[in-house]
Amino acid sequence: MKTVTVIGSGMMGSALVFPARENNNKVRLVGTHLDEDIITQCKKTNRHPKFKRDFPSGVEFYYISDVAAALEGADLVICGVSNFGVEWFRDVILPILPDGLPVLAVTKGLIATDEGELITYVHHWQSRVRELSKHNPICAIGGPCTSYELVAHDQTRVTFCGEDIELLRKIKGIMATDYYHISLSTDIVGTESAVALKNGYALGVALTVGLNQKQFGLDSELHYNSQAAVFGQAVFEMQRLLEAQGAGSLDNLALGIGDLYVTVYGGRTRLVGILLGRGLSLEQALSELSGVTLESLVVSKRVARAMRIRAQKGLVDLTDYPLLMHIDAIVSSGAPADIPWDSFVKEY
Amino acid sequence: MKTVTVIGSGMMGSALVFPARENNNKVRLVGTHLDEDIITQCKKTNRHPKFKRDFPSGVEFYYISDVAAALEGADLVICGVSNFGVEWFRDVILPILPDGLPVLAVTKGLIATDEGELITYVHHWQSRVRELSKHNPICAIGGPCTSYELVAHDQTRVTFCGEDIELLRKIKGIMATDYYHISLSTDIVGTESAVALKNGYALGVALTVGLNQKQFGLDSELHYNSQAAVFGQAVFEMQRLLEAQGAGSLDNLALGIGDLYVTVYGGRTRLVGILLGRGLSLEQALSELSGVTLESLVVSKRVARAMRIRAQKGLVDLTDYPLLMHIDAIVSSGAPADIPWDSFVKEY
Repeated sequence: MKTVTVIGSGMMGSALVFPARENNNKVRLVGTHLDEDIITQCKKTNRHPKFKRDFPSGVEFYYISDVAAALEGADLVICGVSNFGVEWFRDVILPILPDGLPVLAVTKGLIATDEGELITYVHHWQSRVRELSKHNPICAIGGPCTSYELVAHDQTRVTFCGEDIELLRKIKGIMATDYYHISLSTDIVGTESAVALKNGYALGVALTVGLNQKQFGLDSELHYNSQAAVFGQAVFEMQRLLEAQGAGSLDNLALGIGDLYVTVYGGRTRLVGILLGRGLSLEQALSELSGVTLESLVVSKRVARAMRIRAQKGLVDLTDYPLLMHIDAIVSSGAPADIPWDSFVKEY
Repeated sequence: MKTVTVIGSGMMGSALVFPARENNNKVRLVGTHLDEDIITQCKKTNRHPKFKRDFPSGVEFYYISDVAAALEGADLVICGVSNFGVEWFRDVILPILPDGLPVLAVTKGLIATDEGELITYVHHWQSRVRELSKHNPICAIGGPCTSYELVAHDQTRVTFCGEDIELLRKIKGIMATDYYHISLSTDIVGTESAVALKNGYALGVALTVGLNQKQFGLDSELHYNSQAAVFGQAVFEMQRLLEAQGAGSLDNLALGIGDLYVTVYGGRTRLVGILLGRGLSLEQALSELSGVTLESLVVSKRVARAMRIRAQKGLVDLTDYPLLMHIDAIVSSGAPADIPWDSFVKEY
């Protein structure tokens, strides 16, 4: 039995409590400063307010003020913060981690530099660990996994990535269950890029649903030809982006496309894509979905910006990315949804 | 204005009448000997019995007995037969085609030889054309396109493939509309392999839906983690199969994965996969869907057989294809549905 401390009691961090605890570990769930109400409710009911199922018995819940106690004697820290918590985890949590304690992060995203580089959160945090003269290995989870389906024990396959394969095997030993299947990879850039890139493309597939509703009526049949056309274009562009990251292996692409598939059906990104496709402005779409955090918009803007910088340097050809550029035009400049079909066809 | 003769009045052949006719061509739809009732109804109502929408006005309908008249003066023949009509088209239609008249085939599939090769229908028909000392160029359509959505004018993107890019451009000029977007490729093996391979994998994704219904109840929520895990595995295996065909380009994979996406939602293959996942035997599943033609089963059996022969020769490694092998075990040997999750995880 190991001790696993999950920091961040959003849906994804909280969902990971299930395999961790059902695999007979001691599990502590720590809310961030934004999660006080969630922890209060978990303590009271042993259930996350957004889940339909109780936590396994024996999970311990901590407010952020008690994080030091929650970290005491831990064998693994799971970082469950969203994109918007990345700097908080870096500045507040990394300094207080016991030295050497490994981190497994489920946050998906990339950071764009002014030079057009796209940096993984793993590397972003690793640099801080080094600054602190500490030795906490940073590993991460990639792959198709929605939180509520993990809670429901749907069969799930993910990849844990990190520098040290022996450590990854140990972490897999802590987390693997008969419904949570884990591949291991030392390709951190590939794993993290594959699963970060899919968000904007999932929005693109959803646009076609809204565009059809606009053309054929809100109660028209769901069509798949147009979704599939955008999905196929996304496969092409994601692989080109992975290659631009130096991470064009088939395993990475398969992971990212699996993640794209689940994200197409995954709630918020789909909803905003449909609303944009219907003709709502970005402001209108976001106000209809008030309060949601749209990580898809953050990441696709960053990736598009990085590719434009690289194109200026002659490193990539933007005509390889017509779908990404259209999504960015919508998200960054308020352009209307209008899939550039002609730019998808070619001779080859 | 060109004259387009479509042979085979099944759903797909009949759907292609729409872009052909709406692009201002003279269009003739010819039923096979199995399609007499369809043609009778089309003549009477100007609507295909399986479509919710009339044909554009001016389409001419022919029984197979009048095929010679239907071919007179044609500029293009579209072959719309199913997998089960491939030999009929080869033996009955190719000999009566006016010499030089190009063929555009929408039939998706591959033929397995005893040596483990997988031959496209294009090449199968080309060899017959040569035997006849004729010069009919054979081209083909690949990509994600369900017939009823093409009829509904959902935005659709496909690839026309053939040996002669100039001819392909002419055929594209005949068929392209503002909802039917056409790429062109001289990679016949790649295009045809990509779109044939997806059928078995679509069945695999559907299995997870049925397996969840078996485990959680028929009215349980649809889950996507498990679908996405199988979808990602399918990306991996399809690319390995394309490489084994000497056709591993990204354009081919993107086309095939788009086609996989649409097939996952495409009716019969999905239904049989769900029934098998629920635990029905193949016989039970097929009897519940009496009368349907399951091209997915034909093609996945052929591909699995070819890969086993190639593996015996040391040309491929069957551990690259655990999903294909499981689908084949179900379809060919009546094995129960039991996704081999452990064989999907690895270190890389």
